[in-house]
Amino acid sequence: MTAPLISLLTDFGLTDPSVAACKGVILRIVPDARLLDISHGVARYSISQGAALLWAALPHLPAGVHMAVVDPGVGTERRPIALRTGRGDHLVGPDNGLLLPAAERLGGIVAVHALEHAAYRMAPVSRTFHARDIFAPAAAHIARGVPIDAFGPALDVASLVRLNLPAPVHSVGSLEASVVLVDAFGNAQLLAETCDLEAAIGPVSGDDLLTVEAADGGHLGESDSIDLRWRLTYGEAGAGEPLVCLDSYGRLALAVNLGNAATKYGLAPDRRVRIRRT
Amino acid sequence: MTAPLISLLTDFGLTDPSVAACKGVILRIVPDARLLDISHGVARYSISQGAALLWAALPHLPAGVHMAVVDPGVGTERRPIALRTGRGDHLVGPDNGLLLPAAERLGGIVAVHALEHAAYRMAPVSRTFHARDIFAPAAAHIARGVPIDAFGPALDVASLVRLNLPAPVHSVGSLEASVVLVDAFGNAQLLAETCDLEAAIGPVSGDDLLTVEAADGGHLGESDSIDLRWRLTYGEAGAGEPLVCLDSYGRLALAVNLGNAATKYGLAPDRRVRIRRT
Amino acid sequence: MTAPLISLLTDFGLTDPSVAACKGVILRIVPDARLLDISHGVARYSISQGAALLWAALPHLPAGVHMAVVDPGVGTERRPIALRTGRGDHLVGPDNGLLLPAAERLGGIVAVHALEHAAYRMAPVSRTFHARDIFAPAAAHIARGVPIDAFGPALDVASLVRLNLPAPVHSVGSLEASVVLVDAFGNAQLLAETCDLEAAIGPVSGDDLLTVEAADGGHLGESDSIDLRWRLTYGEAGAGEPLVCLDSYGRLALAVNLGNAATKYGLAPDRRVRIRRT
Repeated sequence: MTAPLISLLTDFGLTDPSVAACKGVILRIVPDARLLDISHGVARYSISQGAALLWAALPHLPAGVHMAVVDPGVGTERRPIALRTGRGDHLVGPDNGLLLPAAERLGGIVAVHALEHAAYRMAPVSRTFHARDIFAPAAAHIARGVPIDAFGPALDVASLVRLNLPAPVHSVGSLEASVVLVDAFGNAQLLAETCDLEAAIGPVSGDDLLTVEAADGGHLGESDSIDLRWRLTYGEAGAGEPLVCLDSYGRLALAVNLGNAATKYGLAPDRRVRIRRT
Repeated sequence: MTAPLISLLTDFGLTDPSVAACKGVILRIVPDARLLDISHGVARYSISQGAALLWAALPHLPAGVHMAVVDPGVGTERRPIALRTGRGDHLVGPDNGLLLPAAERLGGIVAVHALEHAAYRMAPVSRTFHARDIFAPAAAHIARGVPIDAFGPALDVASLVRLNLPAPVHSVGSLEASVVLVDAFGNAQLLAETCDLEAAIGPVSGDDLLTVEAADGGHLGESDSIDLRWRLTYGEAGAGEPLVCLDSYGRLALAVNLGNAATKYGLAPDRRVRIRRT
Repeated sequence: MTAPLISLLTDFGLTDPSVAACKGVILRIVPDARLLDISHGVARYSISQGAALLWAALPHLPAGVHMAVVDPGVGTERRPIALRTGRGDHLVGPDNGLLLPAAERLGGIVAVHALEHAAYRMAPVSRTFHARDIFAPAAAHIARGVPIDAFGPALDVASLVRLNLPAPVHSVGSLEASVVLVDAFGNAQLLAETCDLEAAIGPVSGDDLLTVEAADGGHLGESDSIDLRWRLTYGEAGAGEPLVCLDSYGRLALAVNLGNAATKYGLAPDRRVRIRRT
């Protein structure tokens, strides 16, 4: 039988001993666990970036136990939770919105429980490192078969903290959408899909000419607006040429072939843009 | 039976092929080894940071083989060693002080041997990469059951190179201690525990008002001194507010809730501070 | 039987979900695969750096499946390929030169096939993320025993894209060679071996005094040239002293003991230098 899979996502970075301490706790409980790092490079305290990365990665992983910790409220009243998804995954982390976008993409939340029982925590629990003392042991015990209702009371899904994600808005002739994630290549992923764009401006096809403006009326880098084309892949554009495409996670993205769109056009997370035909 | 666990800590970074080369050497000797990265982000040549990270991480890992290499003296007369701890771990690395704080925390050194026998080294041994050619094969052979006395002569524990760590000094009314580690969140861990602080200023409890000054008389960032409170967790302080707390590794730490204390107050490793009641 | 080994090298960095998505795809096909990261810190789009890292790392790894993706031409006509080496490895990646230096070091290319059959790809294949949709599933299927001729037509080795690596040139009394890789310590590896240097200036031995100049006639940092010595290891030089040595991968390297030669002397990849006796 294959050993259980436990993935990890945090904002701890890879220099500190924090990630290794969590993995050590897991391996003491499930010695043969297969550990898979999603990212430990989430910007400190950025729950929304962590949620976006988890949303992007988890559909490609096997069903498993996924521990995610971006937790500015550690040690305060925010609840530690474990939830089960329709696909059969278990997500473990703080109740601050981090887990929900991914959970919804994995078939939705089937059950969610608070992590309370002392038997499944380290003793004593520190006030500042719940990843090691609450979340890692919970992930490990779930991986070895403890059902999540053994950890604490069931919670009402409606009571969970949700991120206030900026939805796309399509009016006649233009789509407004927000940057949700910038990748290492500087591609700016928008919280919008092709269907949103087509609802606003009609069917798009290869080489359609589009214009992108900042919804706040400001500049995009040194430009007032960006004239670019709808492309199927980066390499269809010339070197250094901007484009908009469907990215590999199913969302619209602004990119520059062999360049960095985020730097060139000042596209940081939460920046809102408007796309229309030129 | 569970496969052997081998952890790794180096200052090699994750871009170079060095870490992969070490792991490759290990897997050629112990194909089913479970490999666990502690950190490869130690500042180049910083034996003291490496020692502090190892000290912090190892108690949370299962007993295993731990290879640690921060080795500015590679190729010179410094000895390569392997030691066994009271808890049953084996630590492998250079005799330059890197391994000792962690070893003492794991039950002390039960035995230590020089790594000399050619049968357990790569051939030829390079002059510049003992991690790959001496330490990785030693860790692997220990993991598959070779006793450390097979590697070379026993050494006198008193002969091992030790770091000169700056001890906390408590006088009546104040504690002097040194920053030993700054984490990715900018929290500055002091080489001192709660008992040291209480020996100097008496029992501390929630919200006690304290003042921190630089022991060298200099500024702390833009401040002459820091007025802060004793807290149980970061979130008890307001956003941006400084605090001192017991950190999750058992040491005192200077922190700023949702901020970066190290940057704000110029708290780098070896900076020495004095803490007293306000 | 030991689980199959799959190594990964990319320019994706460790913050994005890309590496985890590839590993997830692999684990869905080969749940017990042993995954080994070589590097995900290749400079974006730098095929030559990726090729140099792969060349350096692979000889130290067990024979296995090695997926390498630095792929500025993703989505264009460049071919996805898998090749088998004389040592018994399989290398999977784009046909852009990335795989060839390593393949030649592992016994040469025994067979190479295009990756075409839809059965071994994700469906649909995105236009921008072939690492996840073509290369990762190919690596996984090869690891579980699918022969590479099942993936697509055999290719002529002579038809593969090759990097144009700048060869060393030895004239009487001097060797010209190019920097091929700068490591995290600032050591500058040259694309030349000891035999190249000795062909130019005769046998070198400990402490021989040499001079290094820029082949382009420019400065090396703030110096016109560097006077240094041939050394067996960094520590034979004084702190801050430059040296040339045989590095641990079998190539000549310019280094500064306890310092950073690349920064001090402006030694970036492709910079060409001339070495002669002083």
